[in-house]
Amino acid sequence: MSTFGHIYRVTTYGESHCASVGAIIDGCPPGLKLSAEDIQKQLSRRRPGQSDLTTPRNEKDLVQIQSGTEFGFTLGTPIAISVKNEDQRPHDYSETDFYPRPSHADYTYLEKYGIKASSGGGRSSARETIGRVAAGAIAEEYLRTAHRIEIVAFVSSVGKVHLPAALAPPSLVPSDQQEDNDEVDDALSPEFRELLATVTREQIDQHPTRCPHPPTAKRMVERIVRAKNAQDSIGGTVTCVIRNVPSGLGEPVFDKFEAALAHAMLSIPATKGFEIGSGFRGTEVPGSKHNDPFVRRSDGSLGTVTNWSGGVQGGITNGEDIYFRVGFKSPATISQPQQTAQYDGTPGSLAARGRHDPCVVPRAVPIVEAMAAIVVMDMLLAQNARSKASSLLPPLTTLPPTMRHGRDQKDRE
Amino acid sequence: MSTFGHIYRVTTYGESHCASVGAIIDGCPPGLKLSAEDIQKQLSRRRPGQSDLTTPRNEKDLVQIQSGTEFGFTLGTPIAISVKNEDQRPHDYSETDFYPRPSHADYTYLEKYGIKASSGGGRSSARETIGRVAAGAIAEEYLRTAHRIEIVAFVSSVGKVHLPAALAPPSLVPSDQQEDNDEVDDALSPEFRELLATVTREQIDQHPTRCPHPPTAKRMVERIVRAKNAQDSIGGTVTCVIRNVPSGLGEPVFDKFEAALAHAMLSIPATKGFEIGSGFRGTEVPGSKHNDPFVRRSDGSLGTVTNWSGGVQGGITNGEDIYFRVGFKSPATISQPQQTAQYDGTPGSLAARGRHDPCVVPRAVPIVEAMAAIVVMDMLLAQNARSKASSLLPPLTTLPPTMRHGRDQKDRE
Amino acid sequence: MSTFGHIYRVTTYGESHCASVGAIIDGCPPGLKLSAEDIQKQLSRRRPGQSDLTTPRNEKDLVQIQSGTEFGFTLGTPIAISVKNEDQRPHDYSETDFYPRPSHADYTYLEKYGIKASSGGGRSSARETIGRVAAGAIAEEYLRTAHRIEIVAFVSSVGKVHLPAALAPPSLVPSDQQEDNDEVDDALSPEFRELLATVTREQIDQHPTRCPHPPTAKRMVERIVRAKNAQDSIGGTVTCVIRNVPSGLGEPVFDKFEAALAHAMLSIPATKGFEIGSGFRGTEVPGSKHNDPFVRRSDGSLGTVTNWSGGVQGGITNGEDIYFRVGFKSPATISQPQQTAQYDGTPGSLAARGRHDPCVVPRAVPIVEAMAAIVVMDMLLAQNARSKASSLLPPLTTLPPTMRHGRDQKDRE
Amino acid sequence: MSTFGHIYRVTTYGESHCASVGAIIDGCPPGLKLSAEDIQKQLSRRRPGQSDLTTPRNEKDLVQIQSGTEFGFTLGTPIAISVKNEDQRPHDYSETDFYPRPSHADYTYLEKYGIKASSGGGRSSARETIGRVAAGAIAEEYLRTAHRIEIVAFVSSVGKVHLPAALAPPSLVPSDQQEDNDEVDDALSPEFRELLATVTREQIDQHPTRCPHPPTAKRMVERIVRAKNAQDSIGGTVTCVIRNVPSGLGEPVFDKFEAALAHAMLSIPATKGFEIGSGFRGTEVPGSKHNDPFVRRSDGSLGTVTNWSGGVQGGITNGEDIYFRVGFKSPATISQPQQTAQYDGTPGSLAARGRHDPCVVPRAVPIVEAMAAIVVMDMLLAQNARSKASSLLPPLTTLPPTMRHGRDQKDRE
Repeated sequence: MSTFGHIYRVTTYGESHCASVGAIIDGCPPGLKLSAEDIQKQLSRRRPGQSDLTTPRNEKDLVQIQSGTEFGFTLGTPIAISVKNEDQRPHDYSETDFYPRPSHADYTYLEKYGIKASSGGGRSSARETIGRVAAGAIAEEYLRTAHRIEIVAFVSSVGKVHLPAALAPPSLVPSDQQEDNDEVDDALSPEFRELLATVTREQIDQHPTRCPHPPTAKRMVERIVRAKNAQDSIGGTVTCVIRNVPSGLGEPVFDKFEAALAHAMLSIPATKGFEIGSGFRGTEVPGSKHNDPFVRRSDGSLGTVTNWSGGVQGGITNGEDIYFRVGFKSPATISQPQQTAQYDGTPGSLAARGRHDPCVVPRAVPIVEAMAAIVVMDMLLAQNARSKASSLLPPLTTLPPTMRHGRDQKDRE
Repeated sequence: MSTFGHIYRVTTYGESHCASVGAIIDGCPPGLKLSAEDIQKQLSRRRPGQSDLTTPRNEKDLVQIQSGTEFGFTLGTPIAISVKNEDQRPHDYSETDFYPRPSHADYTYLEKYGIKASSGGGRSSARETIGRVAAGAIAEEYLRTAHRIEIVAFVSSVGKVHLPAALAPPSLVPSDQQEDNDEVDDALSPEFRELLATVTREQIDQHPTRCPHPPTAKRMVERIVRAKNAQDSIGGTVTCVIRNVPSGLGEPVFDKFEAALAHAMLSIPATKGFEIGSGFRGTEVPGSKHNDPFVRRSDGSLGTVTNWSGGVQGGITNGEDIYFRVGFKSPATISQPQQTAQYDGTPGSLAARGRHDPCVVPRAVPIVEAMAAIVVMDMLLAQNARSKASSLLPPLTTLPPTMRHGRDQKDRE
Repeated sequence: MSTFGHIYRVTTYGESHCASVGAIIDGCPPGLKLSAEDIQKQLSRRRPGQSDLTTPRNEKDLVQIQSGTEFGFTLGTPIAISVKNEDQRPHDYSETDFYPRPSHADYTYLEKYGIKASSGGGRSSARETIGRVAAGAIAEEYLRTAHRIEIVAFVSSVGKVHLPAALAPPSLVPSDQQEDNDEVDDALSPEFRELLATVTREQIDQHPTRCPHPPTAKRMVERIVRAKNAQDSIGGTVTCVIRNVPSGLGEPVFDKFEAALAHAMLSIPATKGFEIGSGFRGTEVPGSKHNDPFVRRSDGSLGTVTNWSGGVQGGITNGEDIYFRVGFKSPATISQPQQTAQYDGTPGSLAARGRHDPCVVPRAVPIVEAMAAIVVMDMLLAQNARSKASSLLPPLTTLPPTMRHGRDQKDRE
Repeated sequence: MSTFGHIYRVTTYGESHCASVGAIIDGCPPGLKLSAEDIQKQLSRRRPGQSDLTTPRNEKDLVQIQSGTEFGFTLGTPIAISVKNEDQRPHDYSETDFYPRPSHADYTYLEKYGIKASSGGGRSSARETIGRVAAGAIAEEYLRTAHRIEIVAFVSSVGKVHLPAALAPPSLVPSDQQEDNDEVDDALSPEFRELLATVTREQIDQHPTRCPHPPTAKRMVERIVRAKNAQDSIGGTVTCVIRNVPSGLGEPVFDKFEAALAHAMLSIPATKGFEIGSGFRGTEVPGSKHNDPFVRRSDGSLGTVTNWSGGVQGGITNGEDIYFRVGFKSPATISQPQQTAQYDGTPGSLAARGRHDPCVVPRAVPIVEAMAAIVVMDMLLAQNARSKASSLLPPLTTLPPTMRHGRDQKDRE
């Protein structure tokens, strides 16, 4: 339903033309420094109208904190945030309303609820994501302050314009497609791992496409402009890295870290795919090459030499960079006429009015980051519950050494 | 944690060497005909040792229903099922136990819990999936009886051996990779849609690889044998179709149908990716081609001409075939020696003992089907709660016709 | 945490001095007629300042619907409601703030969160209940429209002033306390059952104490005035009846109808006890007298002759009137000085400033009704999910007649 | 449904005549010493046939741990436990089956599910509580080991036979019922508080009634024997104390500690009432007497002089003894004939066959303890999640001293 998370719980509300949209964030740790500006920063990155490439609607999206903080600190009580809708009129009723928009949610919402908002978008409107981004921004404040966790997403492809092989996530690296050739090591390049390790939001935001490789970014713009000129649309993929996540997060068996992440990402409007680490490419690489050997890190802990796994093994984080990719389909709303049918089956032609984003992928970047932050936060709190409980038990001295953690109980907490 | 679903709730238990593995299934509709044989059938499809391609361990996996049925019918109370473990001895302690197996869960389990089962697999063992398959088989009995819903999964690729383009899901259809060429209609072929519409489990099971295209199946065998001979392993993808799902299932915004499905699939061991409908390929197809136009079906309801969406729009089912693809990485356990490190960081070489599946994808087929069935069941019950509630309200006669369902309230129920 | 319910889910937010208080109500059936006035009516009954007996603070509590409705109907999407706080200043810092108020939440909130709102009340403030009352009012609209369910609460005691024996719930009927005398039939009088069957909110609201028996109401006023004059406070009990609830609601085993109800009631501030039906008195009545014999009702269904059970048996509603009683302790905030200690343990005397309710029980009436409505709504939706699912299965003709419902499957739905 | 708890989650299964009954306990801290004997001890206290007062059925109830432990320690994975049913035959079909037993669950189960187990009890059977007692025993092992928490329940009344005033919980202390007399201090006697502080299970178990006051225990036996001889039954109340619970447990606002406790207790079969601390008696005591003044404890922390609150304030534990009382109605199953009606409404007389417990209260003692342990465990883990998260934030030095905890951040963890 409209709630995500078990301990850090986010509940969003709002349609495109109601009084406001927003969220209640329950379970935020008390004593965290938090101001409306901390939230606004990410909301502004989500906002339309940031460049020529996006829809020129100028939503101001000023966030108000309704509860849960005082004197700039969280109280541990629910944090409610809201953003007023500028345009609160019910939708003007017109002929196009007799058509369910193809590949949009008009038809399915009506099938589900028997009623739908006058503005077709309703709850499937992109404005719903405002609550998510706010909730993610709050989670990030905590994760950064307490654990130095960093989350950075970027655009890895727009249509068939991909990052170059050396900087691309494995599935975007061209394959020879020779069934009997197992030499695929280069699908996970050192340059890509370096990009994951170092890329910042500041770098990403330097280009309106939010692609970290300027020459590719330029081609992406061309691709988007081509779609725009053709009254058409184009999709793309967002790749995201999460750094400094402690090992041990993820709840076997159904709430594996990657399962929660996949759930979170596929709940974002227009997403069609998710892959973590080597992803679909990892299905083609033999185990002997795909396995990540262990090695002692400088601090004495274990790391892995490669990172095909994407930072999770057995559904649990291993301390390496977590990276994943999300696919966004081409937007359903396009201005060119489409042959389709009305609700009652009458065939006809529909052309969307108004102006629309030909490509939502750059704006999806902060939404992906937000949902990632919410997942990490929820998993971290779940692990806290257990690790603190275990730390109060006597040491496991009677067990074989290979069954217990090498370090002292106290260290683990 | 170990529970999946909100109304149809499945809780599993069990490691590889404990007394038994099993599950409690809560929320199954009462009055459903159900016997142990109905469950056993799918469990046997999951079982290892079904062909030369899989591990020769002969687990019998006989299921026992502990509760929740009488005289062959479900009572509405929790159905507990269990399968005894043949080998209940704790693992023999050996030198290899000082090594966390690369890309396995040994290291992360120990990081998470501070203790782990003597047999490294523990809860990440494939035996955990027995409870899922049983729970899915029960859900399927209901879905088939009450709604004629059919769920069929099959192997769509092993390593780089893919189904031929005409029969392949969009992401497996070779792409020209020309940035400025939008002619991609053929990525969703009529033959593939026909396969989705007609393929049966009987057909699938005719070949040990569970690939529905015999020439490809033959090449898959060769690929697996090559991995086996090289003491190596290989991954692959499973494609699944769900037919006859009513429109209206899926709970916006966080529990969209595809989000729950992605969660379910990524919770299966060894999965690295999920895509629904056009998936990642859909990120490259312009909106004008990717949109699914509506058309009146023979029964008067609306259908779509194409089905790039994969049966969901806005997170809600639209009545079309639901299809998705899941990527399984190459198994981590291989017999050839691997350079890695012990828990304490000491470098060394590890070779797995025993015999292992070089490719788990054929056996993953019934697990994918099971998790799909659980998702559909849970979503169906959630929609029942609402649709029955709405059916008792007066008709919405005062609303504009485009805001309310064309059919009478009573029909909707 | 701050969410109640599984399918009809209510999440509240807000402290006493933040920007607003409110709630998100998720899972409300679509197509329900709903206006702000429907909600306001119950909020106004909760509001302080309704009579001389309550605190003279004049909170206006005007509710705003933020989302989830259009043209006066619910959309099935989350309904957010908010009420602005008139006084949004952080609390003036004073000497009394060094004292945790006895039997208030100051100390425990600080122990729990390590930080607390400057106004001691914070989230334990009575203003938090605004969101509950709104959510309950919405649930009631549905329950009344679709099932003619009626919920009426009233004050059954203030201090030692009780309703007279004939009109009192069993535990308030004086007992002889003779261990060997089992004649206790009169603890459940016909007059009390008649009161339960007929009492209305209009009747209840005719007296500021919300006691349905005017002579007792008069004595309650005297008792409250005595407390007020003594700068003291007094508690009381609220009895509530729910009429026309269908049989079959309640989810064994942990979510029995009465368990959910007890949870809901004990979550209201200042509550110390809950009993359903005969309650604690039922522990003293022998089974032969306490059992409710069955009898055929005029419509052919089964009813019970007596109703010691209070409308639930085995955790499931049986179609009879559901009645229960909730105990509210005397308010902790009193104006007379109290000997106590500061946070650091320094002994001293604390006198609360401002004016306070000497008795909250009359204002608790709509809160009890609201939480009851939320419980019924949630349980009704849960049962819908199952009953609709079962109605699609073939009839249970092969079972012994005593194992299956006498009526046809179709009727059950 | 059949799951209780959010982080420490207990899911039970089983009817009276199925293969086994049991539970899955998910979320138990890893590294806890645990053997089947630890569980068996409490199960044996629950077992029927322990004295002449209880039913002579001799259920052996031997528990088997199916998963989740190795070498006597918990692994952090789900612990499944099961107890075989000795009598697994479906119920013999007889004339009495046409009668729903008065005040039993036969009628409501059939209304709910449309089908019921051949043995009327089904899931409402007392055997269902085996899973709860096991889950509670495991929780207790942790609570005792890590926090020295002690939970002791005892019988405080059987019918009208009550503990003497000095040892009784407030609601069982006789009241003068003088409306204008506020002298009620003696309703919470020092002797009763001493009893709460010191009573042990060993003391309780010395008498078959589990009443800690031998003269009263003797009269309770007489009362039960009288019921037995009259082919009748009698109810009673269980009082429970939880000692050494840390302050800060309980999740405002809906999951207040007492709300979760009330939920837990009212989910036990045959319960009709719950009260915490002063309970219903606290509704009659003026605030000036009912408030618990604070005082510095010897360790420097704050305690309360009295404990009318019962260890919770604002829904959060304050470190004082938690005490509460649960009311169990007289058992519905009695051997004397009862005038009632068949399912189809035909009037007639029903006499239960077999032998039945005339009073279940002594056997309810370990069930109350178990549910209490589960609640404390779940709340403790929830608080761990938050307190560990907060401990990693910088100190709140900029806030007014009355808004932040006096002790250092680190101490709080």
